[in-house]
Amino acid sequence: MKFNNRNVNISKKAAIGTNVRIGDDTIIYDNVVVEDGSVICNNCIIGEPENAYYSETSYENAFTRIKKNALIRSHTIIYSGCTLGENFSTGHRVTIREQTYFGDNCRVGTLSDIQGFAEFGNYCWIHSNAFIAQYTSVKDFVFIYPQVCFANDPHPPSSINRGPSIDNFAQIGAKSIILAGVKIGTHALVGAGSVVVDNVGAHQLVLGNPAKYIKDVREIKSREFDGMQYPWPYHFDRSMPWKEIGFEKWLGQNPQYSK
Amino acid sequence: MKFNNRNVNISKKAAIGTNVRIGDDTIIYDNVVVEDGSVICNNCIIGEPENAYYSETSYENAFTRIKKNALIRSHTIIYSGCTLGENFSTGHRVTIREQTYFGDNCRVGTLSDIQGFAEFGNYCWIHSNAFIAQYTSVKDFVFIYPQVCFANDPHPPSSINRGPSIDNFAQIGAKSIILAGVKIGTHALVGAGSVVVDNVGAHQLVLGNPAKYIKDVREIKSREFDGMQYPWPYHFDRSMPWKEIGFEKWLGQNPQYSK
Amino acid sequence: MKFNNRNVNISKKAAIGTNVRIGDDTIIYDNVVVEDGSVICNNCIIGEPENAYYSETSYENAFTRIKKNALIRSHTIIYSGCTLGENFSTGHRVTIREQTYFGDNCRVGTLSDIQGFAEFGNYCWIHSNAFIAQYTSVKDFVFIYPQVCFANDPHPPSSINRGPSIDNFAQIGAKSIILAGVKIGTHALVGAGSVVVDNVGAHQLVLGNPAKYIKDVREIKSREFDGMQYPWPYHFDRSMPWKEIGFEKWLGQNPQYSK
Repeated sequence: MKFNNRNVNISKKAAIGTNVRIGDDTIIYDNVVVEDGSVICNNCIIGEPENAYYSETSYENAFTRIKKNALIRSHTIIYSGCTLGENFSTGHRVTIREQTYFGDNCRVGTLSDIQGFAEFGNYCWIHSNAFIAQYTSVKDFVFIYPQVCFANDPHPPSSINRGPSIDNFAQIGAKSIILAGVKIGTHALVGAGSVVVDNVGAHQLVLGNPAKYIKDVREIKSREFDGMQYPWPYHFDRSMPWKEIGFEKWLGQNPQYSK
Repeated sequence: MKFNNRNVNISKKAAIGTNVRIGDDTIIYDNVVVEDGSVICNNCIIGEPENAYYSETSYENAFTRIKKNALIRSHTIIYSGCTLGENFSTGHRVTIREQTYFGDNCRVGTLSDIQGFAEFGNYCWIHSNAFIAQYTSVKDFVFIYPQVCFANDPHPPSSINRGPSIDNFAQIGAKSIILAGVKIGTHALVGAGSVVVDNVGAHQLVLGNPAKYIKDVREIKSREFDGMQYPWPYHFDRSMPWKEIGFEKWLGQNPQYSK
Repeated sequence: MKFNNRNVNISKKAAIGTNVRIGDDTIIYDNVVVEDGSVICNNCIIGEPENAYYSETSYENAFTRIKKNALIRSHTIIYSGCTLGENFSTGHRVTIREQTYFGDNCRVGTLSDIQGFAEFGNYCWIHSNAFIAQYTSVKDFVFIYPQVCFANDPHPPSSINRGPSIDNFAQIGAKSIILAGVKIGTHALVGAGSVVVDNVGAHQLVLGNPAKYIKDVREIKSREFDGMQYPWPYHFDRSMPWKEIGFEKWLGQNPQYSK
């Protein structure tokens, strides 16, 4: 049904791998590489030029790389100068501005707006409609839920860009905001609707406006089974690398995540 | 001005009723029914295939039905497998994922993102930029204001999908969040910016982060006239079925709503 | 790379100035004026008809004016009946509904949704994904940060439209909500994540849910330098008219802003 090659516009300076499908009404600009097996759906813009394009005649697009087996859903805009790792996927209407780096196996949900100059590790899942400020830094296995906001200006308006930094396995609850420069520790859990103004230590549950320390996540009893719900990788393995062997064994093989 | 039939792509397996207008750059996929009198504006995708389409060669689109007199504004995406009742309307850039059911006379505002497997009754109005999690259940005459978030995971991340359920006449204030599994009672009012973690009884006004019970809605004095503002149907009838006869008389004719 | 004139549709009743560039897949409807030097990127809709278009055969589009040197990024929708001042710019997927007036040198960020019948002065910057209710009134040099919500209904649902009004130099922090009819004073600062239910006086810092008065903004010490951070124009001049001469001198030349 899709992929009829109607109104598709691909630059001669773009490199398209094998077994790549490109949807109708999609544009791919100069210096974009789309690797093998990727799907770019309808109405996408890949390699969107930066602002200088509109004023500088010598403008040349920065290189953009979409690694193997991406699935980019319709109406997504990816600026030039981004690198998106293997198995990357997006929902609809995602905007990813220039100089954003994603590791492998990441997902970005419908409407999310990544402002550029941001860095994500592997296995990060950003759900719908998150706003990610410039110079945000996110490590591995971090999940960001719908309508989250990451800010980066400690004294608005200023020209300071101090994005939040989020450590491995942290979970950022829906509709929460993380203020400029805040650091969130490994395995931390930010409750839904929180306003996080101070750093959050490893394994801390914080909650509220302003967010306050509630307890260690390892003390959160499950409402679903008899036992503790966190650290979450012991109970959730969908699309995770410990799916076959369990988190404990995987951790033994990947001791850098034990901290 | 519109409806020039430029770059329109309609599947031969779609059924388009009489007096239907379809905007430029719109795509209608297999097994979509658009009933009489409906308007689909520019740049829409109707019957968007589910994920299996990208990997399974035997994929067949589920049936999608847009009933009479819909007005679907531009850039809206409706997945296959949805049923949208009569007089359905959307703003721009709405996303409605698979297996979503709307009754008659519903509206969904610009940017709203309905994640699928959700059920709405009649006369539900969702304003701009709401996020509605999977397995949400909403009855009749429910209004959801801008930037509301409905969550469905009690222990993120998990594979549990426990959407909120909202009873008749409830009003969900702007920028509030309703957490997984929360039940909101008939005629309840959730104040703007609230974080609702517990069930809300019928006729309750709740407010704050976390939301707390404030008073019975029938005790809210109007700032506009001498008297009580709620239950709201006594003072608001725009596009409502009690417009001609008044809410009291309508209620007498529709006793199932008296509870 | 852009501006290939592919699938562009410009009404014969539109007036396009000199040195205007119009992106592929863009539509410009009747009675739109685009002044000299403006750039309209891909997939935009300019002069979107109002609702009456769908039902009234005698419908005529209201006049829409985009003044000199605008930069309208892709997927933006601007309804008929708007006036956008000189040097106006938008991010992607902005929606501006009918009868919205912007002064000069304003910016509106990606995904922002302006509901119409709103008025903005000069040098207003609206960041990503703000929701601006009808009948909002904003003066000059006001910055509105990401995911802000302006409401206008004091008793939802009602047919009252009482938008907030925001005075010169006020700063509305990310993810805050300003309720119907609230007035925000000159140089006021609303902290991120606030729920503002009462008026905020000039130079007040308010914060929290519900927002409470914290201190005079002139008592906020900078974390960046030795001294006070606010009023902000003493420390921020990017694209501002006092850039060359400093705020103090500019204020002497523009005494109407001294109040």
